[in-house]
Amino acid sequence: MLTYDLSDRGRQPLYACLYRHIREDILNGKLRAGEKLPSKRALAQHLKISVITVENAYAQLHAEGYIRTVQKSGCFVCQVERQPQPAAQAPATAPPKRRVYFMDFTSNSICAENFPFSTWAKLMRKTLLEQNTRLLQAAPYNGVACLRKAIADDLYHTRGMPVSPEQLIIGAGTEYLYNLIIQLLGREHVFAVEDPGYGKISKIYQINNVGYRRVPIDRQGLDLQKLEQSGADVVHISPSHHYPTGIVTPIGRRQQILHWANQSDSRYIIEDDYDSEFRFTGRPIPTMQSIDKHEKVLYINTFSKSISPAIRISYLVLPEGLSERFRRTMSFYACTVPVFEQYTLAAFIAEGYFERHINRMKNLYRTRRDSVIHAILQSPLKDRVQITEENAGLHFLLTVDTARSDREIIDAADRAGIRLSCLADYAGQSDEQFSHRFVINYSGIDCSRLDEAVRRLSEVFI
Amino acid sequence: MLTYDLSDRGRQPLYACLYRHIREDILNGKLRAGEKLPSKRALAQHLKISVITVENAYAQLHAEGYIRTVQKSGCFVCQVERQPQPAAQAPATAPPKRRVYFMDFTSNSICAENFPFSTWAKLMRKTLLEQNTRLLQAAPYNGVACLRKAIADDLYHTRGMPVSPEQLIIGAGTEYLYNLIIQLLGREHVFAVEDPGYGKISKIYQINNVGYRRVPIDRQGLDLQKLEQSGADVVHISPSHHYPTGIVTPIGRRQQILHWANQSDSRYIIEDDYDSEFRFTGRPIPTMQSIDKHEKVLYINTFSKSISPAIRISYLVLPEGLSERFRRTMSFYACTVPVFEQYTLAAFIAEGYFERHINRMKNLYRTRRDSVIHAILQSPLKDRVQITEENAGLHFLLTVDTARSDREIIDAADRAGIRLSCLADYAGQSDEQFSHRFVINYSGIDCSRLDEAVRRLSEVFI
Repeated sequence: MLTYDLSDRGRQPLYACLYRHIREDILNGKLRAGEKLPSKRALAQHLKISVITVENAYAQLHAEGYIRTVQKSGCFVCQVERQPQPAAQAPATAPPKRRVYFMDFTSNSICAENFPFSTWAKLMRKTLLEQNTRLLQAAPYNGVACLRKAIADDLYHTRGMPVSPEQLIIGAGTEYLYNLIIQLLGREHVFAVEDPGYGKISKIYQINNVGYRRVPIDRQGLDLQKLEQSGADVVHISPSHHYPTGIVTPIGRRQQILHWANQSDSRYIIEDDYDSEFRFTGRPIPTMQSIDKHEKVLYINTFSKSISPAIRISYLVLPEGLSERFRRTMSFYACTVPVFEQYTLAAFIAEGYFERHINRMKNLYRTRRDSVIHAILQSPLKDRVQITEENAGLHFLLTVDTARSDREIIDAADRAGIRLSCLADYAGQSDEQFSHRFVINYSGIDCSRLDEAVRRLSEVFI
Repeated sequence: MLTYDLSDRGRQPLYACLYRHIREDILNGKLRAGEKLPSKRALAQHLKISVITVENAYAQLHAEGYIRTVQKSGCFVCQVERQPQPAAQAPATAPPKRRVYFMDFTSNSICAENFPFSTWAKLMRKTLLEQNTRLLQAAPYNGVACLRKAIADDLYHTRGMPVSPEQLIIGAGTEYLYNLIIQLLGREHVFAVEDPGYGKISKIYQINNVGYRRVPIDRQGLDLQKLEQSGADVVHISPSHHYPTGIVTPIGRRQQILHWANQSDSRYIIEDDYDSEFRFTGRPIPTMQSIDKHEKVLYINTFSKSISPAIRISYLVLPEGLSERFRRTMSFYACTVPVFEQYTLAAFIAEGYFERHINRMKNLYRTRRDSVIHAILQSPLKDRVQITEENAGLHFLLTVDTARSDREIIDAADRAGIRLSCLADYAGQSDEQFSHRFVINYSGIDCSRLDEAVRRLSEVFI
């Protein structure tokens, strides 16, 4: 008869302890396939435990397929593969270490300490109180209605975009939305990306195995002739502020790109407006979405730059027809943003905090940009550099007159604790016009270290 | 000379008003391409405004490409397409109305009112206080470390799964993770899904245009012979609790499926453990992940069922090799779950609230299931129905002896305010064995309406 020590079972229930012992004997072969187990009553008497305990243990073994019950005959061991039990300790894999730099000019992190955190926390508490258990109900596929309304109102107010909340899709980050766009438009399309351009976009097309082409930009943005030649039919651009060159596409070129799109039913424009809030002079440029008359523009924007990369809320504005197609074919996807964050952000926008925050940050980033430029122009670098496209966004280009190669400079900077990237890194092909141009992201830097950082850079460049 | 009425400009700045007027004249053709604008000084004097105002307006027009500047010569109108301005009012599209049912047996919503909301809110406040501005820093690509640790500990404690936090990927819902899996394993794979099965899974393969096959299940889960014949090499299964039949795959079959996977390098198993927490009798079944010795199992689970569909947190446990591949090729994707929710959930699990909540909900759902079954067995339906697979999960199957077709029954129930789905709806092909079997999801129902709902169902079925 099966005999087990059930006394030293810790906090686990008696039946679970018995179940474990029998399972172990099945797995290690002490109990062989086809063997009959003692009757519940007999085992209970033998082990001095209740019949219900044995019953529970057998039921568990049965549910897991270790034993089978034959009516009026009893329980029999099933054929199972023998194997060692899982180790008690999980394997420890060390996470890869991240290098810490004295200054990182490649990071597109934002200046988090200036976020009105107490306001945000206040709105979170208010949301908790007001929405209460509504926070546990799933959001509609396209996002909570009040957030879509708040964003639509803001777009109309600050960007002159007449958008209905029904055209909006809220999603957990632009990268997620890029994925949805591929599925919405269809994988048969060929996507054009800007060259040079923001690397993640082409990575996403690549890992999704959809066709994409790098199309060169000129001083006004995407080169239309090259776009035509590329054979692409969906173009992914950031006309308000190209990354990393900072180029702003003028109205004439915008209209030409719209013309290009209007020439075929399969053509679309993805307008990526990722940091348009941070234009320093004048009003923001009208979006292509707002001058599109033929349902060609999918507008995409994010709160990662304007609020925090930690909240992961982005949105897509679809033309009416595509919005209806999304509802029909893709609304089975649940909205990826937690309801709680959606309500909080809706209040943050609707109550005017967002606009005030943007204005404050614009000033802050402008000051920060000026400090970086000032530090460079006060340094020995001043006669060797040229600074371009600094009127918008959170980065500028630094063109350096130097004999060293870009790679040598980046490596030397790295050794000096300064992380740099160069324009050529963002380009698909090497081209003389891209060399000796470095991308200076300044949104997340520590200004108190600027002078020292520029001093180190001077030594690297010269 | 250009003459505009700048008095009635509302709250907009003077320069913006001037900019708008000139832009309008360019767009409506009053100012033609090539035409020279008045000098800043002349226009300022003419309109009785400051030169800086004209300068700002011209700068904006220049930035947007409406005018160009010729050194020492002045500003000239560019060639742009004429067009009407966007309408002031956004187009109003009515959102599609959702039918309200007296009782909805198709909804997989959860019983939100029983969620320990005050505890959750308390942890949220605590997170706000403790983490403060850390909540504004982007999470690592695979999720916040303390949440991965809390989940890994919970998996070891409740499921016997020895998992390292490094193997975990936190994501905004299982649907999103299914998308990542396609990209991780590669689109050249052919995915097998269970037939019948949870419809969304095949929808996701379909909209991603990857090959997939429906493989029939038998009483033990996936039919292995049919799986071999299908030519699929990745199998997506829910062995702990199949939806909607409730079948639990026994250990022998699990081992066979692992064997199948071990026969080729390209074969993998996606183990979808979506509601395994709600097993009513005995301990949960050991997962395939925990008995996999050859890095073949990708384990996926969600907090949508166990906490709330509104929080959108799911996770993936990858075998070490795939985890490394993910880090190498896909860690450019930012984590899609807000940092705030991640910290809150980590505390909820680590401080024991999650386990207590699950136990409470298990009791509640068991009582709810018993009430539904009791109501059915007290009704005129009692002699015509058979209830199967009710020992786990949040649904059961109701087989009804009736002469009416499934469609007739669902339509008649719909007219009576009861929403029903049938097993055949989850199957790829029609098969006599699926008919007259209805899926009863009871997790979100209002028990006070049960008697009336069952009374209405009786009339429909008979």
